[in-house]
Amino acid sequence: MKKLILDLDTGIDDSMALAYAVASSDLELIGVTGTYGNVYTKVGAQNALNVLQVLGHQDIPVYCGAEHSLAENSFIRHEVSARIHGENGIGGVDLPVAARGIEEKDAVDFLISSITKYREELVIVATGPLTNLALALQRAPLLKEIIGPVVIMGGALTVPGNVSPYAEANISKDPQAAKFLFESGLDITMVGLDVTQRSQLTKGDTQTWREVQTMSGRVFADMVDYYIAQHPHSNGTASYLHDPSAVICAVHPEWFTRLPMHMTVVTEGEASGRTIGDPEKQRMPHPNVKVCVLVDSEKVERHFVETLAALFRKAI
Amino acid sequence: MKKLILDLDTGIDDSMALAYAVASSDLELIGVTGTYGNVYTKVGAQNALNVLQVLGHQDIPVYCGAEHSLAENSFIRHEVSARIHGENGIGGVDLPVAARGIEEKDAVDFLISSITKYREELVIVATGPLTNLALALQRAPLLKEIIGPVVIMGGALTVPGNVSPYAEANISKDPQAAKFLFESGLDITMVGLDVTQRSQLTKGDTQTWREVQTMSGRVFADMVDYYIAQHPHSNGTASYLHDPSAVICAVHPEWFTRLPMHMTVVTEGEASGRTIGDPEKQRMPHPNVKVCVLVDSEKVERHFVETLAALFRKAI
Repeated sequence: MKKLILDLDTGIDDSMALAYAVASSDLELIGVTGTYGNVYTKVGAQNALNVLQVLGHQDIPVYCGAEHSLAENSFIRHEVSARIHGENGIGGVDLPVAARGIEEKDAVDFLISSITKYREELVIVATGPLTNLALALQRAPLLKEIIGPVVIMGGALTVPGNVSPYAEANISKDPQAAKFLFESGLDITMVGLDVTQRSQLTKGDTQTWREVQTMSGRVFADMVDYYIAQHPHSNGTASYLHDPSAVICAVHPEWFTRLPMHMTVVTEGEASGRTIGDPEKQRMPHPNVKVCVLVDSEKVERHFVETLAALFRKAI
Repeated sequence: MKKLILDLDTGIDDSMALAYAVASSDLELIGVTGTYGNVYTKVGAQNALNVLQVLGHQDIPVYCGAEHSLAENSFIRHEVSARIHGENGIGGVDLPVAARGIEEKDAVDFLISSITKYREELVIVATGPLTNLALALQRAPLLKEIIGPVVIMGGALTVPGNVSPYAEANISKDPQAAKFLFESGLDITMVGLDVTQRSQLTKGDTQTWREVQTMSGRVFADMVDYYIAQHPHSNGTASYLHDPSAVICAVHPEWFTRLPMHMTVVTEGEASGRTIGDPEKQRMPHPNVKVCVLVDSEKVERHFVETLAALFRKAI
């Protein structure tokens, strides 16, 4: 069984990704590294701890990482993030505070030591800005030679972005980090809006969780109902399946059509954050990114809802 | 054997597409419809006639169509077109003027009558702005119900454009026509920069044609040598294979990886001419465009060079 680190800005869909990861029998979650994005880094890390406790997985350590992008000195949470994820990042749901605290060790150091220890046996799934991972590889460049697969929720290749016509939110928050990683020769799978907007969660799905009649089921149903209500395209009846799609792709890549591409990232101007093929490298071998462009949404949706329902039955 | 109409703004790579089409034993070219773009409409139509004569195919009629885009009243040839294709559109090569004249009948009328007559047995390959085809379908909307496959050279989905970071030249010259066609429910295959920039022609290839030692071989070698010399990315040693890729795809779709998408076109602003997936339709069935995203370049290049060499051996 492969080891897994989740790099999260926990957020509602990050919480769902976390729940799917602990429920999966194919991956062993060895830690969560926190970043900024949907929330401030410390808020997200505490959310992750609280979610893990309600899911009965207080054994998993959570680390705090970057608080802002490579190119900036600070980060101000966007208003739209507070709207989509709620002020507290988890839809206003009031979770018991975890008994376990945030680890002393820095998230980037944890990434470096874990990659060094587990090498190709470690999968990293990142669902926020890619700053932590970029910092790890910049501090310890030899990691590039031993690092295993990286799956990201981020980017948009075949559809417009969601923060501009060109850029998706996670990549736009640190385009330099994304460009550095895309051009580093890692084994990266990009799970962007191309596929995350093809899968949906409905109020019927959250009702399935609610009917499990455990605290975890109710908490997740409340959280995701809030998320669905904020969703701009569905009249409040469904939301896209952003962050969980990345973890699902790490376990079931066969459900995704993946396009091998030499990808780069625009870091300046109106299109900053755009993820796009590098035209200078179209004829070169060894494409650096597998871009997910199609997905068997029905399978993903059913599998996800059932996996979480089974988890909620076992948890408190 | 399927019938073929080529809609061309002839141009050097249009001339190559034309040569490939008459050489193909899988398609019967029944006519060429001329449009503006690389050259003015009448210049392009005359170029097509002259090229057909040198190839021994003076039996094929050539029609003049639109002289400007749907949204405009005139068209001024871009300076860059004169540079890439030469003042006369065929790299300054001096072809004998065809004995046959341009047809009296309008290109759009010829499209309408041919679609009506041959229906699904007719393939249309368009390698310029899509104005003629849009006009045909606007004049006779019922054609949508019987029209066969349309293959276009145009657009860019996974790489930047070549006239702006967003737009490819053909689509950018009439984005309204492209949007109308993309959203009309036709069976469209998009052969854009995603794949045309993956295939190349070299000076070695033109030398192969020159060594056939016929007039047609020499003329095409001179024409394409001019085109290669203008090519910005190769230090004058190779050019992309734009327009011929569309005809090759019509004959050998199995060499192309095609992504089924609901595509649309941006018609205003800085990104005018951008071809992009419609995010509102990502979950809808019946995608309207097959976007070519990968290609077996080696097969395409070898097949193309050999097919033209064989044609030049038979021609004058």
